[in-house]
Amino acid sequence: MNPTIELFSQGEEVVTGQITDTNAAWLSQHLVEMGFSVTRHTAVGDKLADLKALLTEIAQRAEGCLCTGGLGPTSDDLTAQAVAEAFGLPLEFDETAFEHIQHFFQRRGLTMPAVNRKQALLPKGAMRIDNDFGTAPGFCLLQNNCWFVFLPGVPYEMQQLFIQQVKADLASRFTLTPQRLITLKTWGMGESQLQQQTNQVTLPETVQLGFRASLEENQIKLLFPPDYPVTEISPLVTQLLEKLGTAVFAVDGLHEQAGDMVSVVSQSLTAQKQTVALLETASCGLLAAKCIGQPWLIEASYQQKFNALAQTQTASQLINTALDLGRALQRSSCAEFALVQLYSGTPAAFADPQQTLTLYNVLTTARGFCQHTQIITGTLQRKQHQAAFSALDLLRRFLQHTELLCPYYD
Amino acid sequence: MNPTIELFSQGEEVVTGQITDTNAAWLSQHLVEMGFSVTRHTAVGDKLADLKALLTEIAQRAEGCLCTGGLGPTSDDLTAQAVAEAFGLPLEFDETAFEHIQHFFQRRGLTMPAVNRKQALLPKGAMRIDNDFGTAPGFCLLQNNCWFVFLPGVPYEMQQLFIQQVKADLASRFTLTPQRLITLKTWGMGESQLQQQTNQVTLPETVQLGFRASLEENQIKLLFPPDYPVTEISPLVTQLLEKLGTAVFAVDGLHEQAGDMVSVVSQSLTAQKQTVALLETASCGLLAAKCIGQPWLIEASYQQKFNALAQTQTASQLINTALDLGRALQRSSCAEFALVQLYSGTPAAFADPQQTLTLYNVLTTARGFCQHTQIITGTLQRKQHQAAFSALDLLRRFLQHTELLCPYYD
Repeated sequence: MNPTIELFSQGEEVVTGQITDTNAAWLSQHLVEMGFSVTRHTAVGDKLADLKALLTEIAQRAEGCLCTGGLGPTSDDLTAQAVAEAFGLPLEFDETAFEHIQHFFQRRGLTMPAVNRKQALLPKGAMRIDNDFGTAPGFCLLQNNCWFVFLPGVPYEMQQLFIQQVKADLASRFTLTPQRLITLKTWGMGESQLQQQTNQVTLPETVQLGFRASLEENQIKLLFPPDYPVTEISPLVTQLLEKLGTAVFAVDGLHEQAGDMVSVVSQSLTAQKQTVALLETASCGLLAAKCIGQPWLIEASYQQKFNALAQTQTASQLINTALDLGRALQRSSCAEFALVQLYSGTPAAFADPQQTLTLYNVLTTARGFCQHTQIITGTLQRKQHQAAFSALDLLRRFLQHTELLCPYYD
Repeated sequence: MNPTIELFSQGEEVVTGQITDTNAAWLSQHLVEMGFSVTRHTAVGDKLADLKALLTEIAQRAEGCLCTGGLGPTSDDLTAQAVAEAFGLPLEFDETAFEHIQHFFQRRGLTMPAVNRKQALLPKGAMRIDNDFGTAPGFCLLQNNCWFVFLPGVPYEMQQLFIQQVKADLASRFTLTPQRLITLKTWGMGESQLQQQTNQVTLPETVQLGFRASLEENQIKLLFPPDYPVTEISPLVTQLLEKLGTAVFAVDGLHEQAGDMVSVVSQSLTAQKQTVALLETASCGLLAAKCIGQPWLIEASYQQKFNALAQTQTASQLINTALDLGRALQRSSCAEFALVQLYSGTPAAFADPQQTLTLYNVLTTARGFCQHTQIITGTLQRKQHQAAFSALDLLRRFLQHTELLCPYYD
């Protein structure tokens, strides 16, 4: 039996629906992959009695509990106090935690506000989790055979602390037999198309198949039981890859974590020391934003005037215009590759979730070009995401399958 | 006292984190607006014992409970059975529900699969909620003075049933006095600074104060009880505004919903028919991406070469360079305003969550300029967000407080 673990989210903003609790889902995914059985999520607001009642309940029910939120400096952050009262562990001033908080402000050239002192008060006997990403230290403790971990509610702080500190600590405290998860990361096929292609391969009954669609990639998930023969995994994945063709841009879990599409593209470009210049229209800066910090991105621009081209040009004229713009951009920027995106459709159609746009992506290189046309759908933000990732995917396909390059005809 | 209500989400996909539970947040918002006090969200998987235990708990704790999920036709949909067993209300075949389900398939020219018959089994004495949007009927019943409402988990079906049937029914069963929520939306002050400024105003004890920090705005939330005199709300908000100065960019709930910073800026620029050109460095396209679809954004660019300026220039040189770039950009783009962002710091410092960058934002207009310097901190993505919103905030401050404009000295 896998050890049971519960999630507990604290915050009036969660319980009143002002924010959606993404922390619980994020942590659950990681915990399930580690081999825990996640049995319950609970969210309560910032009433001390509710917090105490819940802590007491969980201590009697589960073997582990991860709590997020309520560690801030303000008066509505009551988690440490609730733990102290529920478990009879009076709050004690932690000198090291206090220094850490003061340091956090000093590094930013700021004086620590007096209210932040409160964050250095931890329940007696708790183990501190230092937080380099914010002011709230986390802490953990054992109560009634349940291992409690308290983390800040800000998602990125919580995620950093979990990955860098909590995960390894949990793995050492519990006996876990993780299942093996292989994720095929794809772009360019919808969920039903992925399912149809996958159905052509017969999977053993013990292998659990799942699909997950997001704005940035569509995943096929294969969950293998702990005792599944390792030598049989790779041939099965190869069979699936044959059915899915160039849609797969990475496989996670087989050898290493390949990361997302940006990192796949970056690995290749960085290794070859190649550079890219972008001209965005429908994605309006989002593709550049997703590539932040990448040395290969030397230039990106959005110019409203190119949105209007579609009103006067046919599809083949648009593709030729994109080719010309790409080659000019290569010259002016001195980048190896230029990626140009044009689209046809009015601003009204762009904003209307019921209407579609046609996107024309062109990649130009010194030796030739690649082109891809795609229909994008949904809300403005959804279209923007599709536009950004379909342009990036053209670059990815070229880098992974250079045979897709067409020579110039001029 | 407002009646207490809890939310209960059923599904293995929720508890294992394969999907984020958006139903709970959606329903909570509506319930809080109606005047309920939402005290707890709980999600459990599809184990019968867990479902029964939770139902029994809630019946003892709350005055109302909305449950979503687990009403489907498959073997892992166990909500009705759990209710039957937990509350001793045996399942009975509901003829009308069955006809409704059959009808759903007939209207689509389909034959009802045999498994769907199960959905017509409802706990004895439950009131049926007809579902025209899917196959699963909802139902409701009173147990131990707690009014339970069971709805399907598909968000669209759940929302339609809630709005069209459940909401009015709840309003008739409970005595509700909705509270009034006022939200002050700010940028440029951290949570602790906001708390300190707010502390200078004495709030009546009945007013609940809350804070919420995100990457895009920091909010101060004031919850007024239903009987709070309306005429006293506005003077109290004015007092707070005086303490917070130009940090507040919008107040929600006093007159209308003001929206986020992009919409505040857009309302002003669109009304004045003014346009903006951007030069981004640290935000790397994110500011443009956030302004997608805005007719006032006529040009945006990112050029890697400007990241390197900081290595050779002092702070005042950087500001002068930004001024020159802004005025050149105004000329080349014909935009009324140019917003230029430069920063000092190496690529390594940018990527390191422990190191900070100094951001220099300059807004140029025909008549003068505004300048703002800010330290940005945290991960690459966090710095990127801060850079985007601190540049946008400079434009926002100028639009709301034109007295901030400095004349050119040349």
